[in-house]
Amino acid sequence: MKINRQCITRLGRYRNALHRLEALGFVNVFSDNIADAVGVTASCVRKDFSIFGISGNKRGGYAIAGLIAQINHILGKDEIQKAIVIGVRNIGQALINYPGFVKEGINIVAGFDIDPSKYSQYSDVPILAMDNIGEYIKEHKIKLAIIATPDIAAQQVLDITLSSGVRGVLNFAPIRLKTKRDCVISNVNLVLELETVIYFVNTLEKKRKI
Amino acid sequence: MKINRQCITRLGRYRNALHRLEALGFVNVFSDNIADAVGVTASCVRKDFSIFGISGNKRGGYAIAGLIAQINHILGKDEIQKAIVIGVRNIGQALINYPGFVKEGINIVAGFDIDPSKYSQYSDVPILAMDNIGEYIKEHKIKLAIIATPDIAAQQVLDITLSSGVRGVLNFAPIRLKTKRDCVISNVNLVLELETVIYFVNTLEKKRKI
Repeated sequence: MKINRQCITRLGRYRNALHRLEALGFVNVFSDNIADAVGVTASCVRKDFSIFGISGNKRGGYAIAGLIAQINHILGKDEIQKAIVIGVRNIGQALINYPGFVKEGINIVAGFDIDPSKYSQYSDVPILAMDNIGEYIKEHKIKLAIIATPDIAAQQVLDITLSSGVRGVLNFAPIRLKTKRDCVISNVNLVLELETVIYFVNTLEKKRKI
Repeated sequence: MKINRQCITRLGRYRNALHRLEALGFVNVFSDNIADAVGVTASCVRKDFSIFGISGNKRGGYAIAGLIAQINHILGKDEIQKAIVIGVRNIGQALINYPGFVKEGINIVAGFDIDPSKYSQYSDVPILAMDNIGEYIKEHKIKLAIIATPDIAAQQVLDITLSSGVRGVLNFAPIRLKTKRDCVISNVNLVLELETVIYFVNTLEKKRKI
């Protein structure tokens, strides 16, 4: 069975929903409960769980605490994940301060920029010069990088980080990055996301006027 | 032919690639050029274009300037799109200042928060109290909202904005929002995006060790 990105993302959504159900006092849940909370079908939940060998029982369903632990283990959350942010403007700075990452065991350990006015070697998350990035990645064994540079810089930044040892990249630069190296790149293009919403809103509005 | 989100997002990617090719001095392009720049097949490009009635000719390909204009028209970029941001912390504040939106004709006209220390009625993008949001949406005929609140507030914020006239939502709160209203919701969960990258990086690393 092929494990694709959608499947992994759903697993994270299930975990988030389980946390909310747990906060409401639930101890056990059925696939239908999870499906309702996430907005997929119960058979989709069961199929995803079976791929990863997660099993419940028909009578009692799944024990929430155990289920969260199993999903976190699959998602590699048994250990803190270190990541760096490259490009410390609006989005990059926001990601460095984003409490959602820390809560989920993702630790942004440093930021990098070409602008010396951003450097702050002694703050909680130091902002360092781009010149030092390769050395930093090797020394701290960084596997994850978030690219939040302008589009023209992004490909070069990708090449440097990958050649220094990074294996996974979350890219916010508005360009689709390419590489022949064995790595994982996920592109988040905020403008395209909003443009897609705009297209469908305009379609709705046109329908309304007919 | 059904027009889905992926298809619209690709259209935006084609447009971005065309801008880059134009900057390099290209006047005409073939579907293969666009496909290479975006990382899809040429037949995918041609199929997408045919859905929207965009046609080139086999000899000369597509004229870039005209193609960009056609795509922008399809994406509703003939007019400035107004949007509001709800929740002005890290991500919300970064989106208000994000130059990428302005460049693409998306105008963030106001931010809303429950924290009075954030209010700034007279700045370029005023930050206003949540109490006034319904009135503001109606008065300024806002159709687009970006939700960047914590998860517990997001559903309530969605309900208020939709009942006031918003038709499209880009949601950064880490919860999947639901509604029965006729509207478009696109969810961007930054933690899940990074967790998915982490999963596949760990898979790569395990393979390496075998």
